[in-house]
Amino acid sequence: MTDSTTSYPSPSGSPAGRSWWGWGAADKALSDAECAALGQLVPGAADTPLPVPDVSALTLPEVRVEPPSALAPLMSAAPADRAAHTYGKAYRDVIRALEGDLAAAPDQVARPLTEQHVVDVLDWAADAGVAVVPYGGGSSVVGGVEYRAGLHRGVVSLDLSGLDRVLEIDRASRAARIQAGVLGPDLEAQLRPHGLTLRHFPQSFEFSTLGGWLATRAGGHYATLRTHIDDLVESLRVVTPIGVNESWRLPGSGAGPSPDRLFLGSEGTLGVITEAWMRLQQRPRHKASATVLFDDVHAAMDAVRAITQSGHHPANCRLLDPGEAGLAGVARNGESVLVLGVESAHCAVDGRMTELLALARDHGGRPTRAEPGSNDSAADIWRSAFLRMPYLRDALARMSVVTETFETACTWDRAPELYEGVRGRLAEVVKEVTGTDGTINCRFTHVYPDGPAPYFTVIAPGRRGSEVAMWDEIKVATMEILHDHGATVTHHHAVGRDHRPGYDRQRPEPFAAALRAAKQALDPAGILNPGVLIDPAPVN
Amino acid sequence: MTDSTTSYPSPSGSPAGRSWWGWGAADKALSDAECAALGQLVPGAADTPLPVPDVSALTLPEVRVEPPSALAPLMSAAPADRAAHTYGKAYRDVIRALEGDLAAAPDQVARPLTEQHVVDVLDWAADAGVAVVPYGGGSSVVGGVEYRAGLHRGVVSLDLSGLDRVLEIDRASRAARIQAGVLGPDLEAQLRPHGLTLRHFPQSFEFSTLGGWLATRAGGHYATLRTHIDDLVESLRVVTPIGVNESWRLPGSGAGPSPDRLFLGSEGTLGVITEAWMRLQQRPRHKASATVLFDDVHAAMDAVRAITQSGHHPANCRLLDPGEAGLAGVARNGESVLVLGVESAHCAVDGRMTELLALARDHGGRPTRAEPGSNDSAADIWRSAFLRMPYLRDALARMSVVTETFETACTWDRAPELYEGVRGRLAEVVKEVTGTDGTINCRFTHVYPDGPAPYFTVIAPGRRGSEVAMWDEIKVATMEILHDHGATVTHHHAVGRDHRPGYDRQRPEPFAAALRAAKQALDPAGILNPGVLIDPAPVN
Repeated sequence: MTDSTTSYPSPSGSPAGRSWWGWGAADKALSDAECAALGQLVPGAADTPLPVPDVSALTLPEVRVEPPSALAPLMSAAPADRAAHTYGKAYRDVIRALEGDLAAAPDQVARPLTEQHVVDVLDWAADAGVAVVPYGGGSSVVGGVEYRAGLHRGVVSLDLSGLDRVLEIDRASRAARIQAGVLGPDLEAQLRPHGLTLRHFPQSFEFSTLGGWLATRAGGHYATLRTHIDDLVESLRVVTPIGVNESWRLPGSGAGPSPDRLFLGSEGTLGVITEAWMRLQQRPRHKASATVLFDDVHAAMDAVRAITQSGHHPANCRLLDPGEAGLAGVARNGESVLVLGVESAHCAVDGRMTELLALARDHGGRPTRAEPGSNDSAADIWRSAFLRMPYLRDALARMSVVTETFETACTWDRAPELYEGVRGRLAEVVKEVTGTDGTINCRFTHVYPDGPAPYFTVIAPGRRGSEVAMWDEIKVATMEILHDHGATVTHHHAVGRDHRPGYDRQRPEPFAAALRAAKQALDPAGILNPGVLIDPAPVN
Repeated sequence: MTDSTTSYPSPSGSPAGRSWWGWGAADKALSDAECAALGQLVPGAADTPLPVPDVSALTLPEVRVEPPSALAPLMSAAPADRAAHTYGKAYRDVIRALEGDLAAAPDQVARPLTEQHVVDVLDWAADAGVAVVPYGGGSSVVGGVEYRAGLHRGVVSLDLSGLDRVLEIDRASRAARIQAGVLGPDLEAQLRPHGLTLRHFPQSFEFSTLGGWLATRAGGHYATLRTHIDDLVESLRVVTPIGVNESWRLPGSGAGPSPDRLFLGSEGTLGVITEAWMRLQQRPRHKASATVLFDDVHAAMDAVRAITQSGHHPANCRLLDPGEAGLAGVARNGESVLVLGVESAHCAVDGRMTELLALARDHGGRPTRAEPGSNDSAADIWRSAFLRMPYLRDALARMSVVTETFETACTWDRAPELYEGVRGRLAEVVKEVTGTDGTINCRFTHVYPDGPAPYFTVIAPGRRGSEVAMWDEIKVATMEILHDHGATVTHHHAVGRDHRPGYDRQRPEPFAAALRAAKQALDPAGILNPGVLIDPAPVN
């Protein structure tokens, strides 16, 4: 019942055209003039954009390790490769790249083309005391791909983009065996001829990989129910330093603690995910979306709560607070905006949308356009703004504007206080750090019967040369506030190195001991992504 | 937003009236005459039932350890307590109890009334080299509560039935903080005044506890979507020998590997679950059920597959094969029977049922009664037979009939071959072992978009005195067959000690190394449920 897919076209995993310093495609970055115009919208921003340095003119640290000859064909120490693999795409990464600071550059970039190559790189690295930082699309916004431990003889960035194929499809079970290095669009292109889709669309979709999504428990398309990639996993194949870990393809099991759940979210510290059997969807044929306005943001939250507890599982249920809705251009009079979407491959969805809108109305919502089956302009405006946001963030960075996005989740009983608490306390911190009020907006990206996942955006003018220090101060305060409200340090951006202080407080200590022990068992040389989740150990 | 519930009535967690040798309530066991009548339905069964020994007349092994005086009030070495805590309720447990074999009896039964008591018992046991076997309702059918390691200075059965309260309810988030030792009916009785329900109804519901469900990843009411208790967990509180592990209440998180998922399914080897915040449901107000007949079992499977992939998530979607349907009395002409149920607390479900029935008809199904909103007789007959089954199993055991139920899951591409493979190969084994054809029936208890969870029942006459040996032979063959089909050794019965051979082959070796390391970190003295999931280590 499975189709061999050896004849699939191999899409290019090449990062040609990718920005080495900022988000995504180099040619989508805003021009100097556009940056300056954007900066004018933020009182206190710089007058001129930080220049983008010529990468070929930058000084990189000396290369400390050379691969053995058998691995040499997979490795590159070319400055452009090393520069592009130095950082992820956090605000502080972008600023440091613009400042030409590439002190953290890896010594080598390895590009395996087979799983055996991954095994070989790990074997060599363990023997040589070289750290290995798994690298998918490099879109981490939490310091997930930047080596900082200073304990190893060298650092290899393990770029998995060469493992980019859908290898097998099981139509009966609607599942596919997929290599971990495939980027979102290439993955969907390979599934499309089969009428199937993974339907996992994080904001980073174009520039992140299946393996990255799995390693970081990414949040995707669905606002309810199957919010994280975790739920779409049937089985994993992971190269660990002590051997390949392959779980069985199972729709469900109760045989001990789930092996997959240990590797999901392990962020490259326990092994390198090379393949996964993923649960797929048929492409939706029926869709309806609608926009609902609320005068009161707390009434809007109550409506969202009622919707998540109704059992309807809308695909989209995105609540924008007044600031966020204003910024996105979908409301102009201080309303909160709820964007609802339902979809199905099998049957009409109009009835479900009608019921969702009734719940919204019960809480004072005013649907702006509720014709079932129609696309909705707010959703369209939102989607295009959503994909454009990281480029705008980079443009603001060039204008020395500090921007920070952070996402969390908490139970409903705490949600109103969290919302007000962040806007209150963080505003004070922003004032203290930047001397201005700045802007703090919020949307709910995913929602659950027992609580929402709020996503906050902070924008405030920074001082040129101090952007990273200011960002760091705001980040520390953010983690403090989330902790005080019992809200997770991250709902889907992962922990990396930047979220360690918050994560360490959130993680129960016995579990931390168990995780450290598991790490020691799987990665006895301590070479895998040192410093992420677990303190790095000195090399023997 | 949370209600303090200190004024709740504390329901009795007392096992008064519980059978010491067999399933459930002593007064629901079949009489000798009923056993004999039942035996006549199985050609080759014994003529007379095995007698039930007088527990007070049985010889128990000498008590090897005494608790320190501070813990003495919590402990009992009374023969009746020790006898009742010797085994779970597997077939081989029942036979051995009927044979008066209590060699595996624990030295002490501890009944903590507070979490601190649990901490104290573990502290003492770790120092004293005494094994601790966590015990909820004692309904394990996989040797989960029977000490077999022979390595410790003594054994304590840690009976958590004294921790039986709902401590707190958060209405906004529809969640409750619940002590782990509460039995199903007592839990629901405490939630009912609040209009809420956990809605987790395993077959063992009356005689199993929340903590047992969590530790074994139990399967519950819902046939689709939220099949395992795992999905209903918001956070856990677990006493480990190195400290209390408490995860945060979060509706969702991407902060590292899930701490809860390490303890879910850990079967008492990593810690003792004392409390959990559980996600609740409102009680359903709208229900519809229907029964569909199929002439061809494979067409019925195709219908179920279409239903699980439709996105409708029926609460019930139970497929009985012809043998199972005949035994349950819901079909008499060799048909397969699909019992469908949909429910909602919020809105009418008739439309969903209509669509499910249309999918069933597409695959040759004939609804026998499809009026939306009606209860359905097949469902009623089934439910009452379902709860009665373990008592019938015990009656058959007394007639020296070998019965074995095993449950599994596999992807749809393998399901037809698994079904035929079990019925073919296992029938041969049954013939070899018992000299008769026996009966092998199957139902699907839970189903997923990527595969079903088939549950098989084997019934064949055994030889008096050899029942356990025969059962063991069948069990070994069963695990072999499941392995060869890539089907899990257990979907929701857990691993315990009886499933270790199948589990060890299914579990990826690197994960096994990680789990052993985690166990060593959390339980350095190796006292917790030795032999379950992980080989027991010699005591220092």
